[in-house]
Amino acid sequence: MIQCPRGTRDFLPDEMERRRFYEGKLRETARTFGFREVETPIFEDSELFILRSGPNVLKELYEFKDKGDRSIALRPEMTAPVIRMFVNNMSNEPKPIKVFYFGQCFRYERPQSGRYREFFQFGAEIIGSATPQTDAEAIATASAMLKSLGLKDYRLRIGHIGVLRQRIADIGVPKERTAEVLQKLDKKLYDEARPILADMGVSDADMEALFELTETVGGTEVLDRVPGEAGDWLRQVVSYLDAMGVRDLEIDLGVVRGLDYYTGMVFEAEAPALGAEKQICGGGSYTLSELFGGEKVFSTGFAVGFDRALLALEKEGSSYDFDGIDAYVLCVSDDVRVKAAEIAASLRTAGVSADIDFMDRKMAKALKFASSARARYAVIVGARELEEGCVTLRNMATGEQTQVEIDALAGAIVRARAH
Amino acid sequence: MIQCPRGTRDFLPDEMERRRFYEGKLRETARTFGFREVETPIFEDSELFILRSGPNVLKELYEFKDKGDRSIALRPEMTAPVIRMFVNNMSNEPKPIKVFYFGQCFRYERPQSGRYREFFQFGAEIIGSATPQTDAEAIATASAMLKSLGLKDYRLRIGHIGVLRQRIADIGVPKERTAEVLQKLDKKLYDEARPILADMGVSDADMEALFELTETVGGTEVLDRVPGEAGDWLRQVVSYLDAMGVRDLEIDLGVVRGLDYYTGMVFEAEAPALGAEKQICGGGSYTLSELFGGEKVFSTGFAVGFDRALLALEKEGSSYDFDGIDAYVLCVSDDVRVKAAEIAASLRTAGVSADIDFMDRKMAKALKFASSARARYAVIVGARELEEGCVTLRNMATGEQTQVEIDALAGAIVRARAH
Repeated sequence: MIQCPRGTRDFLPDEMERRRFYEGKLRETARTFGFREVETPIFEDSELFILRSGPNVLKELYEFKDKGDRSIALRPEMTAPVIRMFVNNMSNEPKPIKVFYFGQCFRYERPQSGRYREFFQFGAEIIGSATPQTDAEAIATASAMLKSLGLKDYRLRIGHIGVLRQRIADIGVPKERTAEVLQKLDKKLYDEARPILADMGVSDADMEALFELTETVGGTEVLDRVPGEAGDWLRQVVSYLDAMGVRDLEIDLGVVRGLDYYTGMVFEAEAPALGAEKQICGGGSYTLSELFGGEKVFSTGFAVGFDRALLALEKEGSSYDFDGIDAYVLCVSDDVRVKAAEIAASLRTAGVSADIDFMDRKMAKALKFASSARARYAVIVGARELEEGCVTLRNMATGEQTQVEIDALAGAIVRARAH
Repeated sequence: MIQCPRGTRDFLPDEMERRRFYEGKLRETARTFGFREVETPIFEDSELFILRSGPNVLKELYEFKDKGDRSIALRPEMTAPVIRMFVNNMSNEPKPIKVFYFGQCFRYERPQSGRYREFFQFGAEIIGSATPQTDAEAIATASAMLKSLGLKDYRLRIGHIGVLRQRIADIGVPKERTAEVLQKLDKKLYDEARPILADMGVSDADMEALFELTETVGGTEVLDRVPGEAGDWLRQVVSYLDAMGVRDLEIDLGVVRGLDYYTGMVFEAEAPALGAEKQICGGGSYTLSELFGGEKVFSTGFAVGFDRALLALEKEGSSYDFDGIDAYVLCVSDDVRVKAAEIAASLRTAGVSADIDFMDRKMAKALKFASSARARYAVIVGARELEEGCVTLRNMATGEQTQVEIDALAGAIVRARAH
């Protein structure tokens, strides 16, 4: 039996309906904040992702040669494609450009809880603006999205990559080795960082002060301890967020994010319920366009890990009510089947979602099917009632049955739905 | 400058909004007909598509080895994946199972008008039922979908693969060469079919009668000329369609469809406006599940070529009104920016889609941006009005300005939207 490839998933109707419901919430929030949707191809020139993340990214990519011997890769994320799209097609549009996207991304790695080879990201980018308010807008949007899902327990942590970068430069780390140090700090691997820093001639005191800075975590009051321009910037971001009602946040200078391309503010949201794979959202301000052949343009963006966010909702016991259909049309006897088809068609034309038995089932079996299809009403078509221009309308929840004129059927169902 | 790969497209906000609008129409129709959405992975074990379409399909696939040396392929269509999903996960569910899907498919071929390497299909499958009414339901759904798009000029042609298959067997074509003959008939290449049939010892008279059968096209009255069980079947399908109000159809026994796996009714819809690439929908009844390791189950399905359907709408001059945002918040002076952020946040909380200037623009420039963002209202925040708890609300279409209390702002915009 052929299965779906390892690390990928099939979404059956119940699961799919639930996913679309939550996707709709994110979509609605993005639109309310003035973002508009874009879409890019599932695969790109591999070079795009190498330029963004360095050649090491190849290990994790679904990369292959097409029949024209071009190296292409399934997208591992969507910021690089969106910025490529901006450079190709949107660079002359009025700034800022606020776009959102939702779709599959791909990473070749060991599948585990909350980590799939095909996964879904919902993200947003604000392109062409570099103000504290831009950063606040991105964070406020992300925060509103998580709230719109109904997620209760999550932590929003905001940092600034400039603080650590400045300190690292000040204590004598050469520019080309900054990434190496940041990587260790990102994972709080101080014991591994010590010999590296020592090798660069960094003093023990400077090292410990650097680690302490990385551990600067707390409410917005810790901003008083954040030095220089980065501190001023973050204080402005936080004051805008406060005005926008986003106050459930922490300052954490240890938020480094894996990637080299962030230039200033960085932020993450995590859902503690998820354990080791708890990060459900991440973003920050960056420049990428100049790497893809465009002018240098400052942007701020983020992405919500859709699968993990849904997993977090599940762990919180968040429940979702399935939709079902309005009506299921079934026949008392075979001679009314054509008429039943006509009735189903008239319901659908009136906007009533209706299914119909076309497997010639007996009534009891057909009613059972109507129930499994979560129909709110069964429309029972019988020869005797038809003579009077009527059918029997059965409320599937209560079992109550009433005789209804065919012409009044759609109206009766729509009215009941409104209550 | 890195471009998107050949044959793929970026969808910018305007185009994307238009696409989502029409996708929504198809989605709504599918739901109204009692179908529920499913989703399968972007790639599958290559074997799946070879089993469905034969090894020749490899030439057109984006096929590659993953790092575990498994041959995988980007899906060229979604019927095989959906039936695989059914075999794996849904085979014990009550029948029929009515599902729909929408997503990217991939075909490595020469890009041309209406043919892309990454293209979108919207399809539906009814799994586990084999009655004339099942076929009618699929055709009625497809027809309602095309109508829901607002497409005016299209032709719906219904045939039955059994008629030609039976005749081909009757005149002595060996079973293993049936596909070869059908392929020629599908493209009406009679001159190429003649030597092949002669080679099998088919008489000239039988040949010409076969070609005539293939050319049997017309209104439902030609059903009188369709022999055997297939004729009976189609007559029933047509009578159900008639009851459901689907009467704009032709009978065409020359509808063969490219694939071997169709077992009975087959249908196509074409939009003449599109010229050579005019097919916008195709489907029929088939069995596939037994090829994928499941039990043999009869199904009927179809897919709408989403890109081509949209192209046809464009050619018909169908227009779409863009949505825009409700409000754009801008500042008379810099000292009110934090307050403006608060106002924007309150609008969003009230469900009003609002954007805000965060590039510190002067008023005239900000108003110009509001106009390019298709904002219905500009909310102008000034220090003087703020003292009275007010802002200026500017109708962007008429230029009319009124002073509104901040507490009443969201309500004023929502009420205006309702008119």
